[in-house]
Amino acid sequence: MSLHDDLLLAQRLADAAGDAIRPFFRARYETDFKSDDSPVTQADRAAEAAMRAILEKERPADGIIGEEYGATREQAERVWVLDPIDGTRSFIAGRPIFGTLIGLTQASWPVLGIIDQPITKERWAGLTGQETTLNGRPVRTRRCRQLADAIVASTGPQYFPGCTGEHFSMLARDCRDTLWGGDCYNYALLASGHVDLVIEAGLKLHDLAALVPVVEGAGGRMCDWNGDPLTHDSDGNVVALGDPARLDDVLEALHAGHEGH
Amino acid sequence: MSLHDDLLLAQRLADAAGDAIRPFFRARYETDFKSDDSPVTQADRAAEAAMRAILEKERPADGIIGEEYGATREQAERVWVLDPIDGTRSFIAGRPIFGTLIGLTQASWPVLGIIDQPITKERWAGLTGQETTLNGRPVRTRRCRQLADAIVASTGPQYFPGCTGEHFSMLARDCRDTLWGGDCYNYALLASGHVDLVIEAGLKLHDLAALVPVVEGAGGRMCDWNGDPLTHDSDGNVVALGDPARLDDVLEALHAGHEGH
Repeated sequence: MSLHDDLLLAQRLADAAGDAIRPFFRARYETDFKSDDSPVTQADRAAEAAMRAILEKERPADGIIGEEYGATREQAERVWVLDPIDGTRSFIAGRPIFGTLIGLTQASWPVLGIIDQPITKERWAGLTGQETTLNGRPVRTRRCRQLADAIVASTGPQYFPGCTGEHFSMLARDCRDTLWGGDCYNYALLASGHVDLVIEAGLKLHDLAALVPVVEGAGGRMCDWNGDPLTHDSDGNVVALGDPARLDDVLEALHAGHEGH
Repeated sequence: MSLHDDLLLAQRLADAAGDAIRPFFRARYETDFKSDDSPVTQADRAAEAAMRAILEKERPADGIIGEEYGATREQAERVWVLDPIDGTRSFIAGRPIFGTLIGLTQASWPVLGIIDQPITKERWAGLTGQETTLNGRPVRTRRCRQLADAIVASTGPQYFPGCTGEHFSMLARDCRDTLWGGDCYNYALLASGHVDLVIEAGLKLHDLAALVPVVEGAGGRMCDWNGDPLTHDSDGNVVALGDPARLDDVLEALHAGHEGH
C-alpha cells in the first residue's frame, strides 16, 4: 500500500463525513448549542463515527485520534487524525466556511491532509512530495515580496491565550490587512494563493495535522512560532506562510519587543 | 408600478451584478489589491455599471447612490442604493461570504433590499410588509430568550471607530459567543435564524439600506445604537436583532458604564 492508496481512502472518509454533516447544516435549533443533541454535536459525532468505521475496516493496525471520540492505538507508527467539523462556530451560524480535517501522520510527522468543505463541495488534498490539489486541480501559494503586502488571517482575537494576542497584534500591525474568522478554511485559501499568512495559537493536533501537507504541497510553509516543524508534540502556536521567504520577517515581527519573555 | 415590480427589477440587477463579479472571484493577483485594475476594483465597477445601466433604462426618474460611482438624482423620492461588493476583504481572500447589496429607499426609508451571494447563489430578498425569502423560500429569525444565549457577529474589531469598540466589547461580554468576519452575510444569516445579533459601527448608507427590509421582513429589527430607525441620515452605528424583544437588553449592554458619554 502506498500513500496514494491512503489518499484514495482519505477521499472516502471525506465523502462519508460530508454525507453525515450536510443534513445538520442550518438546521433550526433555538436552545443550547452545546447540549448533547445540538445539530453541531450530532453532525460532529455522526461524521467521526462514519470515518472511524471505514478506518477500522480498511486500516485496522493504524491509530486514530479524533476530536469527538479520542485516541485509539495512538502509539502506532501511522495515526489518522480527524476533526469532523473544524469551525463549529461557523457551522452553527450557517457559514459554509467550516471544514472536515483528515490527516495522516507517520512517526508523528504529517504526511497526508485533506481540508473538505462539504457545502460548497471544495476539497483540498495534500500529500508529502506532491502538488496540493483543489478538487483535483493543482493549486499554488502566491509570492509575498514584503510583510507590508501580506493579508493575514486568524479566526478571532479571543482565541489567543495568555500573551499570544499581543504577539499577534505586533505582527498584524506590519501587515496590509487582517481578515478575521475562517478556521481551517483560511489555510485552504492560503494554499490556493488568496491569503498570505495564517497565525493562530493553542491549536490541537486534530486542528493542525491535516493542514501541513495541504499548505506545504502548495509551496507554502508551516511551523510553530519558533520556526520549528509541527509534529504531535507541538504547542499549537502555528504560522502558515504562502511564501516561505517571509518566514524570518514573520518570526521577527511576532517576537518584536518581547525578547525578554 | 408596484413594489413587486421593483423587486423583479432588483432581481435583474442582482443577476447582472453576479455575472459581472464571478469571473473575477479568486483571480490570481500578486501586487496592489487597491490599484485601479485589481480584480476587486474591476469586479466592483463592472457590477455597479451593469446595475446602473439597467436602472437608467427602466427607472430614469429614480435616484441612484452607488459605492463606486457616487450619487445621481439623490434628491429623488425613490433612490436605489447599490454596493456591488460588500465584504471586499472576503472577496479578495476568496471567501464566498461577500455580497451584492441592492436597496431601494422611499422618502429616505428603506423599503426593498436584496443581499445576493453570487458564488454560492444564495439570494435573500426583503420588501416592506412582506416575508423575506432566501431563493424564493420564506425565512424567519429565531427567538432569543436572553442575551446570554445570543451569538453576536461583527466583521472585525478594527472596524469600530473611536470608542465604539469599547461599547461593543461590553455587549459581547454579555453574549454567548462572538463570530468575527462576515460583512453583509451576517445579516442574511440573522434573517435565516442562525445568528442572533449583528453589531457594527460607521456603516455607510450603501452598506445598510438593503439590510433593513431583509432583516425586518424576517421578523427581526434594525436600528441605530439609540434604538432609532435607520434612514439616509443615520450615523451608521447599527444594531440588527433576530428577536426584537431583546432590544432593550442590547441597548443597555452597549451603553453600560458609559452614561456620561
